[in-house]
Amino acid sequence: METPVSKPEARALIDHEQLLPIAPMVYVAWADGDLTSDEVRRIRQQAAEQDWLDESAKTVLRAWLDPEDPPSATQLTRLCRAINEAADELAAEQRLSLADLGVRIAKLDGPGEEPEWMNEHVHKALLDLEKGLGVVGEDATHALLHGLDRRAKERFHEAPARFDVEQMTRLLDGNWRDTWQKVREVLTSGGFDYAYELPKDEYRQQVFEWLQVLAEHGMGEMKPGGEEGVGPQMGRFMATFEALGMFDLSLVVKFGVQFGLFGGSILFLGTERHHEAYLEKVGSLELPGGFAMTELGHGSNVRDLRTTATYDADTGEFVIHTPDEYARKEWIGNAAVHAKMMTVFAQLEIGEDSYGVHAFLVPVRDDDGNTLEGVRIEDCGHKMGLNGVDNGRIWFDKVRVPRENLLDRYASVSAEGEYDSPIPSATKRFFTMLGTLVAGRISVGAAALTATKSALAIATRYGARRRQFGPAGEPEKPILNYRTHKRRLMPRIATAYGLHFAIDGLRELYIETRDQEDTREVEAMAAALKVFSTWNAIEAVQEARECCGGMGYLSENRIAPIRKDVDIFATFEGDNTVLMMLVARNHLSEYKQQFQDATPFTLARYLAKQASSVVQKRNPLVTRDTDKAHLRSSKFQRQIFRVREKDLLGSVARRLKARLDAGKDAFTAFNEVQDHLLSLSKATAERMVMESFADQIDTLEDGPLHDALSLLRDLYALEYIYRDIGWFLENGYIEPPKSRAIRDLLNELCEQAREQALPLVNAWGIPDEVLAAPIAFP
Amino acid sequence: METPVSKPEARALIDHEQLLPIAPMVYVAWADGDLTSDEVRRIRQQAAEQDWLDESAKTVLRAWLDPEDPPSATQLTRLCRAINEAADELAAEQRLSLADLGVRIAKLDGPGEEPEWMNEHVHKALLDLEKGLGVVGEDATHALLHGLDRRAKERFHEAPARFDVEQMTRLLDGNWRDTWQKVREVLTSGGFDYAYELPKDEYRQQVFEWLQVLAEHGMGEMKPGGEEGVGPQMGRFMATFEALGMFDLSLVVKFGVQFGLFGGSILFLGTERHHEAYLEKVGSLELPGGFAMTELGHGSNVRDLRTTATYDADTGEFVIHTPDEYARKEWIGNAAVHAKMMTVFAQLEIGEDSYGVHAFLVPVRDDDGNTLEGVRIEDCGHKMGLNGVDNGRIWFDKVRVPRENLLDRYASVSAEGEYDSPIPSATKRFFTMLGTLVAGRISVGAAALTATKSALAIATRYGARRRQFGPAGEPEKPILNYRTHKRRLMPRIATAYGLHFAIDGLRELYIETRDQEDTREVEAMAAALKVFSTWNAIEAVQEARECCGGMGYLSENRIAPIRKDVDIFATFEGDNTVLMMLVARNHLSEYKQQFQDATPFTLARYLAKQASSVVQKRNPLVTRDTDKAHLRSSKFQRQIFRVREKDLLGSVARRLKARLDAGKDAFTAFNEVQDHLLSLSKATAERMVMESFADQIDTLEDGPLHDALSLLRDLYALEYIYRDIGWFLENGYIEPPKSRAIRDLLNELCEQAREQALPLVNAWGIPDEVLAAPIAFP
Repeated sequence: METPVSKPEARALIDHEQLLPIAPMVYVAWADGDLTSDEVRRIRQQAAEQDWLDESAKTVLRAWLDPEDPPSATQLTRLCRAINEAADELAAEQRLSLADLGVRIAKLDGPGEEPEWMNEHVHKALLDLEKGLGVVGEDATHALLHGLDRRAKERFHEAPARFDVEQMTRLLDGNWRDTWQKVREVLTSGGFDYAYELPKDEYRQQVFEWLQVLAEHGMGEMKPGGEEGVGPQMGRFMATFEALGMFDLSLVVKFGVQFGLFGGSILFLGTERHHEAYLEKVGSLELPGGFAMTELGHGSNVRDLRTTATYDADTGEFVIHTPDEYARKEWIGNAAVHAKMMTVFAQLEIGEDSYGVHAFLVPVRDDDGNTLEGVRIEDCGHKMGLNGVDNGRIWFDKVRVPRENLLDRYASVSAEGEYDSPIPSATKRFFTMLGTLVAGRISVGAAALTATKSALAIATRYGARRRQFGPAGEPEKPILNYRTHKRRLMPRIATAYGLHFAIDGLRELYIETRDQEDTREVEAMAAALKVFSTWNAIEAVQEARECCGGMGYLSENRIAPIRKDVDIFATFEGDNTVLMMLVARNHLSEYKQQFQDATPFTLARYLAKQASSVVQKRNPLVTRDTDKAHLRSSKFQRQIFRVREKDLLGSVARRLKARLDAGKDAFTAFNEVQDHLLSLSKATAERMVMESFADQIDTLEDGPLHDALSLLRDLYALEYIYRDIGWFLENGYIEPPKSRAIRDLLNELCEQAREQALPLVNAWGIPDEVLAAPIAFP
Repeated sequence: METPVSKPEARALIDHEQLLPIAPMVYVAWADGDLTSDEVRRIRQQAAEQDWLDESAKTVLRAWLDPEDPPSATQLTRLCRAINEAADELAAEQRLSLADLGVRIAKLDGPGEEPEWMNEHVHKALLDLEKGLGVVGEDATHALLHGLDRRAKERFHEAPARFDVEQMTRLLDGNWRDTWQKVREVLTSGGFDYAYELPKDEYRQQVFEWLQVLAEHGMGEMKPGGEEGVGPQMGRFMATFEALGMFDLSLVVKFGVQFGLFGGSILFLGTERHHEAYLEKVGSLELPGGFAMTELGHGSNVRDLRTTATYDADTGEFVIHTPDEYARKEWIGNAAVHAKMMTVFAQLEIGEDSYGVHAFLVPVRDDDGNTLEGVRIEDCGHKMGLNGVDNGRIWFDKVRVPRENLLDRYASVSAEGEYDSPIPSATKRFFTMLGTLVAGRISVGAAALTATKSALAIATRYGARRRQFGPAGEPEKPILNYRTHKRRLMPRIATAYGLHFAIDGLRELYIETRDQEDTREVEAMAAALKVFSTWNAIEAVQEARECCGGMGYLSENRIAPIRKDVDIFATFEGDNTVLMMLVARNHLSEYKQQFQDATPFTLARYLAKQASSVVQKRNPLVTRDTDKAHLRSSKFQRQIFRVREKDLLGSVARRLKARLDAGKDAFTAFNEVQDHLLSLSKATAERMVMESFADQIDTLEDGPLHDALSLLRDLYALEYIYRDIGWFLENGYIEPPKSRAIRDLLNELCEQAREQALPLVNAWGIPDEVLAAPIAFP
């Protein structure tokens, strides 16, 4: 190591009066680090040409600006300190050019007035020198003077809430306020501590014990009718499921399997004798059970599942049988450990005739937990998430159950083997049975949303506290103040609000209409929102994870477990892609149910009508309107979501018709327009949320809540328009200036939402004990 | 239950000669399930008006078409069977209308000729009746006749490979063929069995044992120079890391921490004495170590980390100290259990002067695994994934290490406490030290890509076998034959190929240029591809997971563990969003390094130049060209990726300049254009992959490999153009007809790629034993 000797010590630069105003520039020239040798040489030349400098000053300057022999790191460090010491009294807030800084230092160092040699000519020369450096002088000054103070932390002040948070929570809880409050109360009453690192077996046991607590609180009760009727009962159950989404999702799923699927199948597919025999035991968890529909070979295509239930008229029994490996029941919740009975879906066969899929109650374990004869159960094993749920596979080897075990609301078999059903068409019968499961789809979407809220609340609260980087020489800024961070989280918060109102509205509609004959519209809506909410959950929770960096990856901070658990929500209760087809097909015909099947018969007539009916007016006054009031009007927002859906429907219909006209079979035709069908379904779901959001706001009086929600509605609307901006541009509904205006406004709205970010996520009413993530708290 | 008595039995319809041709329509009218009562009434009326029917026939028909008294489910089932029996001899392949089917049945039933009452008039009447049903008759016929055979499985024949798979693998292995082969050999030599369900502690031990095997194979060796020089050695190490990505990612990370980060920091930041003392022990795993850079308070903003290393000239020691809780070392791999020594990054302080971040070797455990005095280590705990890696937190309480433990390649401290560095600028010194870590970023992107290939290979192989739904009455189709499924997987396969060539090329460039003084361009490229590859991994593995439905959620099928493990790749080795800023800033100035910091000094000059330099010609002949040859030409593809990048650069520069001109500080100005910076970085990464892909193909002779890769290049190019189609449309580079043509062509290319999907994923050369997922095998 050589000791630098070739140039005057740092103080020389500071000690020379004439060099004082130049010292900051010299420091920056080097500290900046990346001037080329040529650039340093040029600046050196320029400095040497300053006619107001005396020779000794020029000598020092030449030594300091020698590209062949730069100052050492130590010299630079000391120069920085020397400048800081000299500038000690300068107010930190001031923004000064480097030249000004130099002059100010020179003044401080002298009698407090400008030194006599300082004149306009010198001042201009200094500014020219600074210009030669090609830097933003104010920033450089700021960094130079305050770089050392970087570690100081000022307390960042969050803006106060501009709306009543508690009032917002009540609005969100809506009709199910009592239910939400009860869930909050139970979950914070002790015993509900997260348990992510438990080995699978212990975790399952823990979840079962939690479930027992819920059962003891009567949260799984189901009664056929009763005083209040099935509707409100279902509503309460669904709201409970939704609210539980703020806690461990294994518990939510187990709750759904036991009470919703197992209990629900008995309630809706069974008749009085089943209700009397089982419902109470199911609700108290005395009879843990499951719902054995899915098979290894058939998950989405339930209609073709292969387990058989053959009627034996001699004994009056059904023989439940797994004919081959692909017919084994797969993924059955509660099966691996806890269930004693299963609702088994199987092809009903009587003599030579096959009647399609029906549901049977089949005992699988005795009270000691031993598997019954003819039943084989295997653990599905370790999963990405939800390891607190004991999924299993089941094989049936000619298991006999009495005739009474057919859940016979929609079809019965007499002792003699005579089949009867109030619904003659096998297709219609099948979809009527499946239709009873629509409550599950609404609930799954709702719980996914609640989980999403938890993740967003954690990420938002962390983002407001976590600091990283900042302006030169100032304390680091909360990461939530960065534009990209706002852009990642704010539209997600807005979407969560919109989805909440949409799901809430759909649940009410479901409760109102569930007794009606034709519930296909509601089923399609449930499918659309299930898809929207579960994919949104995956995306938003993922964003939350990444927004929290490594901290988001730690299980204790809860986002990671939520992410793993919620992943399968896109698959179970109907694979999202398959459900999207159902939504699109629902549009495509008045003959809706056939379209749910992959082999629609009835197309031509309807399509011909549909294909010609869509003529959209593209009004240039609208497609070019970049006015903020227009972009933020619910009228424009509602309209553009509707227009897109209608346009897509027309174009899908035209494409389908062209293919059918060309002699392609329906399967091929549908397959060839599948990507369009997906776009159509997405458009439907997004339109539904748009309308629910706007409708909800329309019911509110002007005031802080109205304002806060309007901002979020605008954010939701513009976010989803912008996500599909290519489509709108391609189809002429939006022109480039408007597209740019939307992008700018989106950023502006994100700024506004960020100011209220904490109250907005707090209004979701997730108790701190349940939110639990250490990073969400100071 | 009432027994249906009100209408003639099923046979009555079949037994009446004149009704034979109508029977299929009657069945469909009911089985279809959703004709309204009015529609049935209309058809009934129409049937009754058929003048060629005798009275008895009309009576039967009226009974069967009574909307008030529909046929029972049993009757319909039997009618279906009766029709099938009558039609037994009809060839399955024929597509017949319902009327034709009826006529054919009538012929079969009689003497083989048309019955005498059958004439043109009757034929036309039958067709009218069918039309009244409003169905696609051919489909209905097909479903009716073959619905019962649905369970039959034909063997689906995959097209043979049109290229030599082994040759493709060699092309991909490239210069590192031997390394890839060695990794394949070691991983299949026994002992490398996946262990996802192990509890954390056992899993970590397992990973350590695997690491020991790799060390024994010399895979972690690092030598300063040696015979072959550091370059090829680094290349081999990086390729090993990449290839290991096909196995457990915990092992990959542990391998990277021990040999890449810990070993690499000694090799690149240390000098001879460190090399001699430690490198061999690091390579043999005798000295397990770690890389303690990240702190709780500072992950991305390393420059402001707060651990201190204060030089004590009296004893010739550095005192390593954690001044507060935010300064604790966080997320340190190998720390919780195995490491004996750490490369610790701390602020060097000598006397009153602070010299910025430097690296020190600090022993943390003795040979028995006990933590040394002054060192406190805590387990980070359970994570979303990578639980085979023992991440820990470390606090130092005035831990003393000898002066020699400063890794002193870029800065040294004399016994007397004199600081010296070949790099005077603290900023430049800091980034030079960090720059040595660029190999890690390239490698992390590479390993993420290999993991992505595993997931895509599993999903593709499963998709080709898994069947669900199908045309009416035919065997179910492989899900990979559905348009959406192809659309989900094929572009991902293409992207994996493109990324492979890009990363491979970058690694070669890195090896060639790593000794050069200015490696910032390579650093920016490494950042761009790290971001592209890791976000692509998250997206593509997620898609693979969803494409495999529930099966993808099971750990044994490997996609789920890959998904969980790879998630953090977007965060570690540089948070992706922060790295994107680095990439964008690299563009924004010749003064590149300052821009890596959040407080750039030097902007104005460059920006002014840049802002005015971008004038893009939008040639209508090009923006409207929908010709396939044009869209598939690498000339067009290269051009449009370049044009976008350049345009974005210009617009970012203009926006920045406007803000700086308006007096905003650089931090604020950058923050306000952050979303544009992200777009620019994305455009850069996608352009890099585009060019590498095209360059690679340009080196190949015409032939099957060239053809296969060209298809994938087209798919990659159009996929990424289409993902950003909104931007291209908004900016007039593509007009709507071209956008539509791209979408159509994308679907067409997906069809073509699907035919070669299996050979394409097999060419990645992942041995079956390593791929391992049960669903990937018949």
